[in-house]
Amino acid sequence: MKRAIVLLSGGLDSATCLAQARKDGFECYALSFDYGQRHRCELSASEQTAKHLGAKEFRIFKLDLAQWGGSALTDDAIDVPDHSDSGIPITYVPARNMVFLSLATAWGEVLGAHDIYIGVNSVDYSGYPDCRKPFIESFAETARLGTCAVDENWKWNIHTPLQALSKAEIIKLGISLGVDYSMTTSCYNPDKAGRSCGKCDSCFLRHRGFVEAGVADPTLYSDGVTFP
Amino acid sequence: MKRAIVLLSGGLDSATCLAQARKDGFECYALSFDYGQRHRCELSASEQTAKHLGAKEFRIFKLDLAQWGGSALTDDAIDVPDHSDSGIPITYVPARNMVFLSLATAWGEVLGAHDIYIGVNSVDYSGYPDCRKPFIESFAETARLGTCAVDENWKWNIHTPLQALSKAEIIKLGISLGVDYSMTTSCYNPDKAGRSCGKCDSCFLRHRGFVEAGVADPTLYSDGVTFP
Repeated sequence: MKRAIVLLSGGLDSATCLAQARKDGFECYALSFDYGQRHRCELSASEQTAKHLGAKEFRIFKLDLAQWGGSALTDDAIDVPDHSDSGIPITYVPARNMVFLSLATAWGEVLGAHDIYIGVNSVDYSGYPDCRKPFIESFAETARLGTCAVDENWKWNIHTPLQALSKAEIIKLGISLGVDYSMTTSCYNPDKAGRSCGKCDSCFLRHRGFVEAGVADPTLYSDGVTFP
Repeated sequence: MKRAIVLLSGGLDSATCLAQARKDGFECYALSFDYGQRHRCELSASEQTAKHLGAKEFRIFKLDLAQWGGSALTDDAIDVPDHSDSGIPITYVPARNMVFLSLATAWGEVLGAHDIYIGVNSVDYSGYPDCRKPFIESFAETARLGTCAVDENWKWNIHTPLQALSKAEIIKLGISLGVDYSMTTSCYNPDKAGRSCGKCDSCFLRHRGFVEAGVADPTLYSDGVTFP
């Protein structure tokens, strides 16, 4: 059976990616990162999702991307803002996807897996440079040049099945593939019990996705959260 | 003053790189990796070298590349062989330079430093795919596409001042720049006191470099090591 590395964040997008990779016939090696993000609930969500969707192996890779600051997702001194629409979000973590894909490449090379799934998306996250298609294509070529050749025509396949989908389309796809979204968490600012804030960019986009998909939102929100 | 990230391994090559970066007028941020390599003496050598050559900051980034195996440098179950000349060496660590350069990019983005120095070399390490020029050039473009634009013509400069130099030429360059090579360590298989084995690929190439450069080899070897 062909093997694939699937990057798993605990969120809705990457869970859908894993389900798609299974559907595509891959034996899946799920990789999550304990990178100094503020919220541990992401890691337990990843683990639960990996089991639920039948990953062959689940691994948490530890590395401290918080040490040099630069993002509201890792730096306690920077507040996570409520939803807004302008420019590069403060929740961008410098070079995060490049670091994550490089580590997926390293594990893939050891496993003989030259397929990687990543849940990047150009619709909702167009402000993140490392979610765009030219970056992903360039990364695949860099990985080919930087690892050991398998044969003359070999390459790395970086699968981005969500690239052009809206959040609602992602949710519909995931539902059709059997994803249980109640296991996933997307909030940038959850409370101590791991419940979502309902106010940040990520909650806003996620909830709107469920509404537009015509699917009941299974997210557990903090007390008193309402949507307009 | 312009800033640069300099990857520092504790070895002869990267020390020379740091000296070159200082000569080029950069304020240098030295980055070493505690990645599960067997030998801790590499990290103390890096720190000593960073201080000696006037790095502005020295940082050890911890990440466990040993966890999935695949290299004699990180996997206790794989013996480091003595010197030989064939194919991809067993000391290759999968995707190591891609991971290291990605993390240098992350730190660089936070610091506003778009220059990175790495001591790759095509002469002595032609078996490592991630030391070759096409990989380095492709990486620079991937980094540009995956990080936040500074202006219209911006790019990442990955400096490889040793790319085309022989070991002897590297040593001559370093000596001219004031590098004290007695602080550096290159051995794949040092003894417990951190002394070099004199038998592995890396010792072989290093010693031959000193001989060819006409410079006394300052390396501390284990008792009884002699060279033909």
